[in-house]
Amino acid sequence: MTTAFAALGRKLRLGVIGGGPGSFIGPVHRAAALLDRRYEIVAGVLSSNPERCREGAAELGITPYTDVRTMLAAERLDAVAIMTPNDRHYDECMAALQAGVHVICDKPLTNTRAEAAAIVAAAEGKVFCLTHAYTGYPMIRQARAMVAAGVIGALRAVQVEYLQAGMSTPVEQGVLTDKLRWKLNAGRSGPSLVLGDIGTHVHHLVCYVTGRPLVRLAADLGAIVPGREVDDYGAFLLRLKGGIRGTLTASQALAGTENDIHLKVYGELGHIAWSHRSNNHLELALNGRPAQRLARGDADLLPPAARVLRVSRGHPEGLTEAFANLYRDAAEAIAARITGHAADPLALDFPTAEDGEAGLAFVEAALASRRAGGNWVDV
Amino acid sequence: MTTAFAALGRKLRLGVIGGGPGSFIGPVHRAAALLDRRYEIVAGVLSSNPERCREGAAELGITPYTDVRTMLAAERLDAVAIMTPNDRHYDECMAALQAGVHVICDKPLTNTRAEAAAIVAAAEGKVFCLTHAYTGYPMIRQARAMVAAGVIGALRAVQVEYLQAGMSTPVEQGVLTDKLRWKLNAGRSGPSLVLGDIGTHVHHLVCYVTGRPLVRLAADLGAIVPGREVDDYGAFLLRLKGGIRGTLTASQALAGTENDIHLKVYGELGHIAWSHRSNNHLELALNGRPAQRLARGDADLLPPAARVLRVSRGHPEGLTEAFANLYRDAAEAIAARITGHAADPLALDFPTAEDGEAGLAFVEAALASRRAGGNWVDV
Amino acid sequence: MTTAFAALGRKLRLGVIGGGPGSFIGPVHRAAALLDRRYEIVAGVLSSNPERCREGAAELGITPYTDVRTMLAAERLDAVAIMTPNDRHYDECMAALQAGVHVICDKPLTNTRAEAAAIVAAAEGKVFCLTHAYTGYPMIRQARAMVAAGVIGALRAVQVEYLQAGMSTPVEQGVLTDKLRWKLNAGRSGPSLVLGDIGTHVHHLVCYVTGRPLVRLAADLGAIVPGREVDDYGAFLLRLKGGIRGTLTASQALAGTENDIHLKVYGELGHIAWSHRSNNHLELALNGRPAQRLARGDADLLPPAARVLRVSRGHPEGLTEAFANLYRDAAEAIAARITGHAADPLALDFPTAEDGEAGLAFVEAALASRRAGGNWVDV
Amino acid sequence: MTTAFAALGRKLRLGVIGGGPGSFIGPVHRAAALLDRRYEIVAGVLSSNPERCREGAAELGITPYTDVRTMLAAERLDAVAIMTPNDRHYDECMAALQAGVHVICDKPLTNTRAEAAAIVAAAEGKVFCLTHAYTGYPMIRQARAMVAAGVIGALRAVQVEYLQAGMSTPVEQGVLTDKLRWKLNAGRSGPSLVLGDIGTHVHHLVCYVTGRPLVRLAADLGAIVPGREVDDYGAFLLRLKGGIRGTLTASQALAGTENDIHLKVYGELGHIAWSHRSNNHLELALNGRPAQRLARGDADLLPPAARVLRVSRGHPEGLTEAFANLYRDAAEAIAARITGHAADPLALDFPTAEDGEAGLAFVEAALASRRAGGNWVDV
Repeated sequence: MTTAFAALGRKLRLGVIGGGPGSFIGPVHRAAALLDRRYEIVAGVLSSNPERCREGAAELGITPYTDVRTMLAAERLDAVAIMTPNDRHYDECMAALQAGVHVICDKPLTNTRAEAAAIVAAAEGKVFCLTHAYTGYPMIRQARAMVAAGVIGALRAVQVEYLQAGMSTPVEQGVLTDKLRWKLNAGRSGPSLVLGDIGTHVHHLVCYVTGRPLVRLAADLGAIVPGREVDDYGAFLLRLKGGIRGTLTASQALAGTENDIHLKVYGELGHIAWSHRSNNHLELALNGRPAQRLARGDADLLPPAARVLRVSRGHPEGLTEAFANLYRDAAEAIAARITGHAADPLALDFPTAEDGEAGLAFVEAALASRRAGGNWVDV
Repeated sequence: MTTAFAALGRKLRLGVIGGGPGSFIGPVHRAAALLDRRYEIVAGVLSSNPERCREGAAELGITPYTDVRTMLAAERLDAVAIMTPNDRHYDECMAALQAGVHVICDKPLTNTRAEAAAIVAAAEGKVFCLTHAYTGYPMIRQARAMVAAGVIGALRAVQVEYLQAGMSTPVEQGVLTDKLRWKLNAGRSGPSLVLGDIGTHVHHLVCYVTGRPLVRLAADLGAIVPGREVDDYGAFLLRLKGGIRGTLTASQALAGTENDIHLKVYGELGHIAWSHRSNNHLELALNGRPAQRLARGDADLLPPAARVLRVSRGHPEGLTEAFANLYRDAAEAIAARITGHAADPLALDFPTAEDGEAGLAFVEAALASRRAGGNWVDV
Repeated sequence: MTTAFAALGRKLRLGVIGGGPGSFIGPVHRAAALLDRRYEIVAGVLSSNPERCREGAAELGITPYTDVRTMLAAERLDAVAIMTPNDRHYDECMAALQAGVHVICDKPLTNTRAEAAAIVAAAEGKVFCLTHAYTGYPMIRQARAMVAAGVIGALRAVQVEYLQAGMSTPVEQGVLTDKLRWKLNAGRSGPSLVLGDIGTHVHHLVCYVTGRPLVRLAADLGAIVPGREVDDYGAFLLRLKGGIRGTLTASQALAGTENDIHLKVYGELGHIAWSHRSNNHLELALNGRPAQRLARGDADLLPPAARVLRVSRGHPEGLTEAFANLYRDAAEAIAARITGHAADPLALDFPTAEDGEAGLAFVEAALASRRAGGNWVDV
Repeated sequence: MTTAFAALGRKLRLGVIGGGPGSFIGPVHRAAALLDRRYEIVAGVLSSNPERCREGAAELGITPYTDVRTMLAAERLDAVAIMTPNDRHYDECMAALQAGVHVICDKPLTNTRAEAAAIVAAAEGKVFCLTHAYTGYPMIRQARAMVAAGVIGALRAVQVEYLQAGMSTPVEQGVLTDKLRWKLNAGRSGPSLVLGDIGTHVHHLVCYVTGRPLVRLAADLGAIVPGREVDDYGAFLLRLKGGIRGTLTASQALAGTENDIHLKVYGELGHIAWSHRSNNHLELALNGRPAQRLARGDADLLPPAARVLRVSRGHPEGLTEAFANLYRDAAEAIAARITGHAADPLALDFPTAEDGEAGLAFVEAALASRRAGGNWVDV
């Protein structure tokens, strides 16, 4: 089958909004956009600071703008990708949609439900992708497909949690980074920091995998770090559609955690369990049978998971990055040769032809030992 | 400090050799080359089949060639990336080096040590990067740096293994894929299949992390699948420089394994352990202290590891790919809108504005429950 | 220091109540009582069925009784151990305490708080041990001691759960075992099956480790298996003394679980985590430092943990049972020799002198290989 | 079926040799002997030191002897259990066998193969149990039964290792414990310390599980701690009967390890993997299927494993010890009440009736919350 993208016959023209110099999420969005060669990033409003707009755009080799509407008017964009602070999303989404441009937007969508509903209405007829990226993991796709296929039978209960440590110390009392400054400003980050930041992620995750919306809850929401004025902890009793019981916990102030997301979905026959830390695997435990560990890349993954794999069984998704580290360091070494500029000494740490020769020396010693009946030989 | 790459002020022009349609490793090399925006892929000899050369090049939007020397003569390349069958590496490396072009080459370098030594000589003055990619993982860089810094004291012993299942069945007797056809041909894959394919990887890994070359070995090398004519199993007793004892096992025929690489390096004070399956972590166990699990992104990683991170603590390297899955699916949906062509239905599975609105409904219900003393409310 | 037990100079005389033929918990109690040679079991009311009382007592070699008060009057007992259905505990505890006998009693203490309070009053001046056995694990003792010592700083939050699968199918509709019959009878098992059975375990566990009583909660309590009349699921939002937030989940109806108990206690500096499945270890994760895995038997365990170890570092508690399996099978073989009766063929599976000889053959071959420069030798 | 032990109608009379005050393995042997109520320990030669013989025997309440032959002549023993230094085993075994007594003996059987063969001959017609206790774990029994049943198909390869840290420091240079003194004396501990101590354990384990004797090996045997005169490291290439390849590594000098035993057995269809640290589980990984984690207590364990379980699914073997910790502490408290002697304060840490009342308070608060629609209530 030809895909629509193949039928298009060209890359999509993408403008980026936010993600300027120093941003954590900006590079992730841009690398993700480029990874499968379906977008070219042509323009951007990278920062609210005009100087940094230009700087960032120059580094990326794209046309700089300082105003979203100007960019939308000047460029023939297919889509924009929005990665600004939460309070900016509404205006930027509306501007793009009104300009007839498709939107990819970071979460949370907005700071109020009313704004969110307005965007939903304005997005009629347009593509709108909200980057709840955890649902992009192959094994989450597999989990959703297995639940839908009835592998664990009728649903009974769910448990989901997102545990971070970043705000377990009184960060308010130190020097604030830009990111922290807007996050600690409730006018910008929204009515409940922990929920906007990470609570909506696991809310979406559990609804996505079960296919059930949330219909009722009881909340224990507040701050567990003394003196804090924004929320850093939320625990919830849940009722999903159909009477499914569950719990959801999200906190940014649980010291010693490691950005841990855990999801368990229980059905009448068994349950599935997924952990962010082992995102290449999914556990399936059916009553009366040994627990099974499904691996990304297993032969029998369901189509929604199989189609989003990039590397083969046993290779974690991070393999591409491991390769990229060698390519990046080689680029530095090559650039040093071309320019005569000193290379970053830490970059000169990739395997070379000498290592290749050493590898062959190993192989030939192995063959020599075999010829000697498996006995010891020098390399 | 300005890097040499920044001083260069442009991307490097890269030609690719091999990795045409259907290749596993080709897309990994190319995605890795592009991830950090340091290369542009401009030309390629993608296959030994002229038809597939053109097809693949068209898909990538690069200039097609069917002959390496022609490409080297016609294009002003900074570097080539070689990902062909092992028996081709020697000629292609030599051609590139003689043309004055830097080389990035897949492993094993060649099929004989003599050829390898010739490449080493020819590479004098050029950058030559051999993609033993496992040494690109941040936690392997950390391991090497910790060993070098004396964290585990004087070295005592090593254990390393690379265990695969792909050849645990008599694949020779089935329909051969192209890849399998050349691998089972000893003239092409080299004198010991298991060693060329994966043995050299772990040989390099253990030498890289310890900083010690191999000086002596005893081998148990052969086939464990009855009737097989190529090697699929090698176990070794090792002596690294300085009298360090160790073992190395590599096999492609251990049924039920999952491309498992395990490395342990023991010193007088403790040991470090790394497993491919948990490549975002590294275990450090010192005598008399609880074992420690270092996480990619921990605040105190040593510089060689810290500099190759792309995402923050707790986010596995695969996060970029998870984001990319959303971007790719959004591209399909956008392309469908633009062209009127039907979208791949499996692609229509990304979070949308409606999901964003549901997230805000969750947040607002949480706030309402809090206002009601934490009691139950409808969403 | 001399212990009180050493000063006593004899074993304690113990009577057992409940735990007759077919019981799961009876043998565990009795083995536990005998393991450290501090009790002799002299008498018992093993069942409500007189026939099984006699049978069980004969098998154990103790004096049989069919009535608790008769046993208390006739035997000079130091203590009784009670392991009957929940609705019997109150009468039996009161009888023992009124007879001046110390009590060891299985949980839950009673079916109502009023009865529990009466026992508390009656136990004044007596030893009363309630077997919430999970607090007997060395690493739980360590956790409590670490929290008390301030290792994780001021407490912030807790998470605890006890997840079982035994009632995830509609067991009510099948043939009922004796145990299931009384459990499904709310008059006998108490007002909330899941809470009496396992909820009180984790309630105790979290209060024990934190040293904080529970002061407030919101409950989601009921049955998740359709048509069930007893509770099989309870999830709770908690407030421990001092405003510590937390969650507690207990369910016997989560298909595919494996009697999983998980505990996490978060403080300002880090957290501790324990899982029943890995009960020989405890995780300590402090902000800014790699996570640590404390092992039962580590040199620096705190005294409350160190004093309850039986085997050395690296040996799980189950080592005693592994040894015991060999002893038991040897007993069967020896008894067969003495009696001429055929031995249970499955018991004849323990290592023998021939295995010992094979071990020495291995050692001597190893020495021969070393003499031959490490080369191959026959065994 | 009646077992031979039931037909015997009495406990076996056991004499113990070795394991006196201060011994690690003595209490493990004795607890194991008593756990299933099949032996009574009646007499013992507990130490080579007459004083400690008497002391230890008094503590155990058994008849003391200072000479094995005297004990054998004076007592009507059914069996002896031997847990002395290795160089004593031969004489003691022969004395017991010549006296017509069955023998349970710690490993290694002897220090030479010739002695071992003599014991094999003398044991003809007697029961001789060598306590390679790791084969007593239920999941090792399961592994052996699965291999025998062909679950992983024809065998292909094995990997086994036993890694300890106890001798990773130059213990020779410190104050020697009694145990260390005889171990470091090659005349007493045998020709290769590491092999006698732990190498024979894993040699037995791999032969036991595969059912295949070892027929050939190449050795790398010696000391990795500089200056050491006894062996602390052995790595081996193996050939089991039938041409099965494999590796075995045993070392007592790998810093930071935790008494780790790992076993993997590979067949044509898949492999099984077991680790001492997770001895309640066994992994089964079959080609083309998700890896399975079998749990001790799973419904479908094979008979040789099912028959050696003591507690139900999800309860680790150590549960008995956890219970026993409560019983032991209660004994101390009770003894304090009886004698008036102060109790060990660390022992006063077991759950009491007050804890039981607190549990019921939790239950009743949960019920009150349910009556209030699941909303918050005070406890």
